[in-house]
Amino acid sequence: MSDTHTLRRITVFDTTLRDGEQSPGCTMNLRDKLLVAEHLEALRVDVIEAGFAIASPGDFESVKAIAGVVKNAAVASLCRALPKDIDCGWEAVRGAAHPRIHTFLATSPIHMEYKLKMTPDQVYDQAVAMVKYARNLCADVEFSLEDCSRSERPFIYRVVEGVIAAGARTVNIPDTVGYAMPEQFGQLVADIRAHVPNIAQAHISVHCHNDLGLAVANSLAAVRAGADQVECTVNGIGERAGNTALEEVVMALHTRREFFQADTGIDTSKIYATSRCVTNVTGSKVQANKAIVGENAFAHEAGIHQHGMMANPLTYEIMTPESIGLPRNKMVLGKHSGRHAFESRLDELGFHLEAARITELFAKFKDLADRKKTVSDADIEALAHNIQTMIVEHVKLDRFNVTASNAITPVSTIRLCRDGKLVEQVAASDGPINASFKAINQILGVKAKLETFQLSAITGGTDAQCEATVRVRDGARVFHGRGISKDVIEASILAYLQALNVLLDETVQKKTAEG
Amino acid sequence: MSDTHTLRRITVFDTTLRDGEQSPGCTMNLRDKLLVAEHLEALRVDVIEAGFAIASPGDFESVKAIAGVVKNAAVASLCRALPKDIDCGWEAVRGAAHPRIHTFLATSPIHMEYKLKMTPDQVYDQAVAMVKYARNLCADVEFSLEDCSRSERPFIYRVVEGVIAAGARTVNIPDTVGYAMPEQFGQLVADIRAHVPNIAQAHISVHCHNDLGLAVANSLAAVRAGADQVECTVNGIGERAGNTALEEVVMALHTRREFFQADTGIDTSKIYATSRCVTNVTGSKVQANKAIVGENAFAHEAGIHQHGMMANPLTYEIMTPESIGLPRNKMVLGKHSGRHAFESRLDELGFHLEAARITELFAKFKDLADRKKTVSDADIEALAHNIQTMIVEHVKLDRFNVTASNAITPVSTIRLCRDGKLVEQVAASDGPINASFKAINQILGVKAKLETFQLSAITGGTDAQCEATVRVRDGARVFHGRGISKDVIEASILAYLQALNVLLDETVQKKTAEG
Repeated sequence: MSDTHTLRRITVFDTTLRDGEQSPGCTMNLRDKLLVAEHLEALRVDVIEAGFAIASPGDFESVKAIAGVVKNAAVASLCRALPKDIDCGWEAVRGAAHPRIHTFLATSPIHMEYKLKMTPDQVYDQAVAMVKYARNLCADVEFSLEDCSRSERPFIYRVVEGVIAAGARTVNIPDTVGYAMPEQFGQLVADIRAHVPNIAQAHISVHCHNDLGLAVANSLAAVRAGADQVECTVNGIGERAGNTALEEVVMALHTRREFFQADTGIDTSKIYATSRCVTNVTGSKVQANKAIVGENAFAHEAGIHQHGMMANPLTYEIMTPESIGLPRNKMVLGKHSGRHAFESRLDELGFHLEAARITELFAKFKDLADRKKTVSDADIEALAHNIQTMIVEHVKLDRFNVTASNAITPVSTIRLCRDGKLVEQVAASDGPINASFKAINQILGVKAKLETFQLSAITGGTDAQCEATVRVRDGARVFHGRGISKDVIEASILAYLQALNVLLDETVQKKTAEG
Repeated sequence: MSDTHTLRRITVFDTTLRDGEQSPGCTMNLRDKLLVAEHLEALRVDVIEAGFAIASPGDFESVKAIAGVVKNAAVASLCRALPKDIDCGWEAVRGAAHPRIHTFLATSPIHMEYKLKMTPDQVYDQAVAMVKYARNLCADVEFSLEDCSRSERPFIYRVVEGVIAAGARTVNIPDTVGYAMPEQFGQLVADIRAHVPNIAQAHISVHCHNDLGLAVANSLAAVRAGADQVECTVNGIGERAGNTALEEVVMALHTRREFFQADTGIDTSKIYATSRCVTNVTGSKVQANKAIVGENAFAHEAGIHQHGMMANPLTYEIMTPESIGLPRNKMVLGKHSGRHAFESRLDELGFHLEAARITELFAKFKDLADRKKTVSDADIEALAHNIQTMIVEHVKLDRFNVTASNAITPVSTIRLCRDGKLVEQVAASDGPINASFKAINQILGVKAKLETFQLSAITGGTDAQCEATVRVRDGARVFHGRGISKDVIEASILAYLQALNVLLDETVQKKTAEG
């Protein structure tokens, strides 16, 4: 057994809010991002890449807002290797307790020739110049060699040495297209260690993509070869097949720390709550057999396995559900549960709320417990999430009545309460949910487009609650909504109204700001 | 560039129907399994593990049925290392064109002590005796050393040598609990090659689990070290975090075949259709960022990436969507599309149907195209799947009328046509779908329990179709149903009726068999 004090400490750089958010369907609004950032702090990641500040005014604002609230982790903005990008990124992160500028330029022949249309010498000069430029603003600068795994060794060594001399504290080696094999990728890191004279002055970071299912394996091979930082996202979200999954790389290092002689500073017991939070705000679900955080990750179905598990859990279990914050034998909550038990469960599930909000939530819990025999964690999460996002209810459902049939056209009558006034509208469409959304649009005078719609029973059986999730687009802005009810129609209406309340709130705030 | 003729040919052993089916929520019935087996043949896997014959009469029947239809692949049944298991497995596979018996026994200290309560000598003797026993029945015998990655080297070598001498053609090295690291697992395979004198007389197989996200990486490390066979499942389904994903290990070998100096015999262009089929029959969806087969696997969102992609696709793309059977620029199908275009698309999507069924489907397609501007692949898949599973409609929806409201209790009136007679029933419940299912249960006199219920819009926008999927349990039997409609209530009713039709069909067949 090795002493844990001798383990190398790997830096965890989370890019859920930048590379993750960039993936189709994972767009988050400001309050979603703040919620995720709060979970990442609790998880004790070392660096939070909060966005790509120059990409849009919205991105700039959210990087700045996150920089304003995060205390312990460094907050980074991605910037192309251009002065205007770096200026903008610095403006966004300068208020952080630990600001970082992360700038990048491609170094592979194919990217330099076709995308950048620059020679290697031009790329070298710009990389070095922009790191110097960034260092004049910020002490903590990271430089990424985009598409490094397809770049040529001598040029890699030259650029790495140059940017370190120019002041980069971290040099990132991305496998941008997810092409690398673990053996090769580990060798690349080892070679950089061996061939770059000033390498000891910087941290080596890796950033892997999962196109061939190897992002985690590549990151781990790099750690074995001496990498100091791993870039990753919660649930592995990200473009195409996504990024290295934080939960997988962290739990692999943690479970096999003797093998790696390394570990992270992550509080693994916060993994489950963070994963659920990212699923909730993006609406992007993890599959049942997803490693670590999937619904089945700790489920043992086969008879022979159950038999072994009963004889000795270690026959089939290499880590415990508790280690990721998934309690094994939990007390079941129901109508007789008190506020204390309810508060503890909220805490376990990663919700840290003010007393007034807990009171509000406890009332809703009691109401639900009256209608259901047992209230599941998923039920509680669903309730808590609605409160935690603190959506101002500009408009509220008062009454609805829906008729659906395959003989006549479905009709929905909706009565909403808007600013204290009741407004009613009736609409017909080819389905009762379409009809309801149409009536709501007519009342509110909005032209939002429904992009995705999903409904599922949260818990099995006939007393199940239904959870509806919607993604609504209004021009470039995307809004998520979630609704819970035993009635699918009501759940759908509530989800749609939640998304529209965020939309209305942003519109109101914009008007206030302009006025 | 190496000549493809010099590449080692890796055997692909698919266990979707055994280890995959064993995972929570992935239970399949006979016709689902036959459909998956048909896709696996088209995909050209080398071995289909069709089930665990002794586990239940249903498992036995499905192994036997699959053995009866598969022509090119070997068909295996899993059997514990016991005469009664092997007899039963042989009975199930003996009718196959290429039968295989796959028997296993644990070799790790923890499994031998706590689960088997056997000494190493007893384990050795039983393994050797049972391989001999199996070889008396079947020429093709595979032996697995369960929990091999946690077993001791000298004992592994001894057992491997013993079972090969007893006639095993394939020796499988499982990482049963998903604990191995690629470097270590590759070394294990290399050591077995180096230390077992008669190893050249057998194939080395590996079987990895994904608990730490490394199943694919471990399998690939084993191939580099000389493994000849990889065991895997479509979409990586399987207990806990699942098995090695077939599509990932196959595409990694294929894309990097120069590196591995190895490839498989898989027709990669059938990967997408096979993945969709497994998702359809299990109802277990893959996440959007799943490597190879996820919805986003080939999607490029970020502006900088799109710019690069336009300049040269190779800047960000290491494999083409076409290589897995996902056509890039497809003609859009709509109301003006003819039967020929429709047939080609069906074929591309992996549906190989008789002319009469295509005619039936084409009529449904035309009907849908009248109501929607464009008909997506997902729409066609959904329609085709219903036909392909060839469910006998013992009962059919005639009419329904549903009222839902938050002011009064939802009520559903359902009229079904059963054996030519119309039967109507009305029921109230806390949601319109519950009320509808209750009315149906009353009409049919069944007591099936709804286990899971999911609804999603197949395609975005207001002319979207909804897809409902249900899992219904009747005692030990599980039935899946799927329904498509623009109305969520109708989609749910159709899904429920589809599941119940399979249930009724099995009941009818049972009575016929008994009578």
